[in-house]
Amino acid sequence: MPDSNQTSLRRAPRAVPSVPDLDPVIHQRVRLGILSALAAGGTTSFTDLKTVLDLTDGNLSVHARKLEDAGYLEVRKSFADRTPLTEYALTEAGRVALEAYLDQMEALIQTARPS
Amino acid sequence: MPDSNQTSLRRAPRAVPSVPDLDPVIHQRVRLGILSALAAGGTTSFTDLKTVLDLTDGNLSVHARKLEDAGYLEVRKSFADRTPLTEYALTEAGRVALEAYLDQMEALIQTARPS
Repeated sequence: MPDSNQTSLRRAPRAVPSVPDLDPVIHQRVRLGILSALAAGGTTSFTDLKTVLDLTDGNLSVHARKLEDAGYLEVRKSFADRTPLTEYALTEAGRVALEAYLDQMEALIQTARPS
Repeated sequence: MPDSNQTSLRRAPRAVPSVPDLDPVIHQRVRLGILSALAAGGTTSFTDLKTVLDLTDGNLSVHARKLEDAGYLEVRKSFADRTPLTEYALTEAGRVALEAYLDQMEALIQTARPS
């Protein structure tokens, strides 16, 4: 009696690692840039972030708002010599979420680079 | 004579690292999964990739085609016991592009995690 599952005779599947679910709020390139810049540089002004990440006002505002809505970023408004100053900072939730994302990405890098 | 550029008196900008341009063909989550699975497991069947990455046929086909169009992936059609077998493999260009992407991501991780 032939083996009912013919396909099981084909080449045995090689073990291929699964890929973690990357947080889409963080994984998007601009937002990843914002979060990692804030993690590296601490509280940072809108202007500095815009310069460093080479973004337009609109682009930075849109993505910063998405991060704020997700609870990962907070906006701080103040005055510096009577000039309005907008600064961004990571929230604790943002720090935790970024750490988890970086851990997943490190694991993926190790997967993709078998020693 | 007051300093003409009043804004220069505001808080000095803290050094914030810039963020590299991540290849959007690779950075998309599913495509990143496909490439890292192929880098880790070598030539892999459509069925195994679909299982490991938990994708639908359509989703895997669409993203594999984008990687193929970019020259990062090649499709190999063969027969295993008269059953059609579709396998994917990284091209050399795909390997080089993935390596560059992983280097950039490692740099970003180090940036986001100042020791």
